Amino acid sequence: MLEAGCGVGAQTVILAGNSPQADITSVDISDESLAAAKQRVDEAGLGNVEFRQADIFDLPFPDDHFDHIFVCFVLEHLPNPTEALAALARVLKPGGSITVIEGDHGSTYFHPDSEPARRAVQCLVDLQRQAGGDALIGRRLYPLLVRSGYRDVHVSPRMVYVDASRPALVDGFTRKTFTAMVEGVGEQAVGQGMMNEADWAAGIRDLYRTPKTTGLSATRSSRLSDGDDQMIGPAAPGPKCDGLFAPRETTPVQ
Amino acid sequence: MLEAGCGVGAQTVILAGNSPQADITSVDISDESLAAAKQRVDEAGLGNVEFRQADIFDLPFPDDHFDHIFVCFVLEHLPNPTEALAALARVLKPGGSITVIEGDHGSTYFHPDSEPARRAVQCLVDLQRQAGGDALIGRRLYPLLVRSGYRDVHVSPRMVYVDASRPALVDGFTRKTFTAMVEGVGEQAVGQGMMNEADWAAGIRDLYRTPKTTGLSATRSSRLSDGDDQMIGPAAPGPKCDGLFAPRETTPVQ
Repeated sequence: MLEAGCGVGAQTVILAGNSPQADITSVDISDESLAAAKQRVDEAGLGNVEFRQADIFDLPFPDDHFDHIFVCFVLEHLPNPTEALAALARVLKPGGSITVIEGDHGSTYFHPDSEPARRAVQCLVDLQRQAGGDALIGRRLYPLLVRSGYRDVHVSPRMVYVDASRPALVDGFTRKTFTAMVEGVGEQAVGQGMMNEADWAAGIRDLYRTPKTTGLSATRSSRLSDGDDQMIGPAAPGPKCDGLFAPRETTPVQ
Repeated sequence: MLEAGCGVGAQTVILAGNSPQADITSVDISDESLAAAKQRVDEAGLGNVEFRQADIFDLPFPDDHFDHIFVCFVLEHLPNPTEALAALARVLKPGGSITVIEGDHGSTYFHPDSEPARRAVQCLVDLQRQAGGDALIGRRLYPLLVRSGYRDVHVSPRMVYVDASRPALVDGFTRKTFTAMVEGVGEQAVGQGMMNEADWAAGIRDLYRTPKTTGLSATRSSRLSDGDDQMIGPAAPGPKCDGLFAPRETTPVQ
């Protein structure tokens, strides 16, 4: 199977550990990220991953090469996700399948509701759009996959729900993952005049104060095998994904 | 068990059908709704429901009377949900449990995103607040239940996800349930100048055009039995609820 856009290997170790019988090829455009991913996989003692520097839009693999493709938190950064998915379809065997996991930051809501907090999240969405990406991509995975030529598309949305009875998630997800990510664009957001400094500080304060709920879309789909009407059977459920950083299971390749 | 606020019996027939061994008492403040609920239950041939006109805040039952209480889409209409929950706790046996299902209209998002559509949904939220209710109550069930004296509160959020591969939901949920509900407040929203007529029409048009995702919170909790540290065991998962109108299963009473 191919992992496209492995980054520093956060998902690679989970994939490789959960599917020891799978031969995994993980590619990324950044040599630096690849080195970090390789180190992580080596440290986990996993031997079924091969790393390779590659551009998703110009993959160094023949047509119809992989049984399965895994893409996680990659499309949200690309200005042309449809083309990326089509480029991946080329190297997927007819009848093969793809698993795509992307977030949707605009699906976040919280109690107590807070206008500055909502505006701070919106700054993240707007800045990602400025950079050519789409932080709201989760909600449009279905049309994206259909338009890129995949069939039997089954989107299975997940959400992360946090309240005071789940202190590990309050800390690990609400604070250290989601709010830290929003906080990370503060300089840019305030610098560009999207929000003034006081409103920004209020928004971040309210986010730190609240447990929250956010959406995450996981999808699994089959490649369109041109002119071939063979069904892949009922679409398998998407991989289980407990948080932006922790897809703990993926559908095994076979 | 007690069903508090049965309305016209939409949930009553499901509860009574799924738990034939349970003796159900369904109350509502409206005699007219009760008559409709009774007719529905009779037509379904169900014999395990007793109907009674009653006010949640002044229930005609002794203390510690019921094993289980079921409340669905009721608290969102009340200005004082904490007091309602506390009044229900009085008639719940020590060690008994409550299932609360409420929606959260502010959790709705869609693709393509649409500002007038978001504003139209916000009108619904604002009008419900004007009327003393809270259309965003789903996200605060946890603190509400804790504050009302329940313990072992376990909130299990559900969402309704709709895309073009689910035509029955596009029609039955997106169009005929959610969008129809928003559309129903159009006269009030435009009449009060919350939105002008053109923007309102654009918002409703965009909602009809889009499959959508919305949140729904289901929760199950146990009554605080004063000074009694007995655990109820791990909190059971909330009832499965496939849509605003269709909780198809509920935890059996025993």
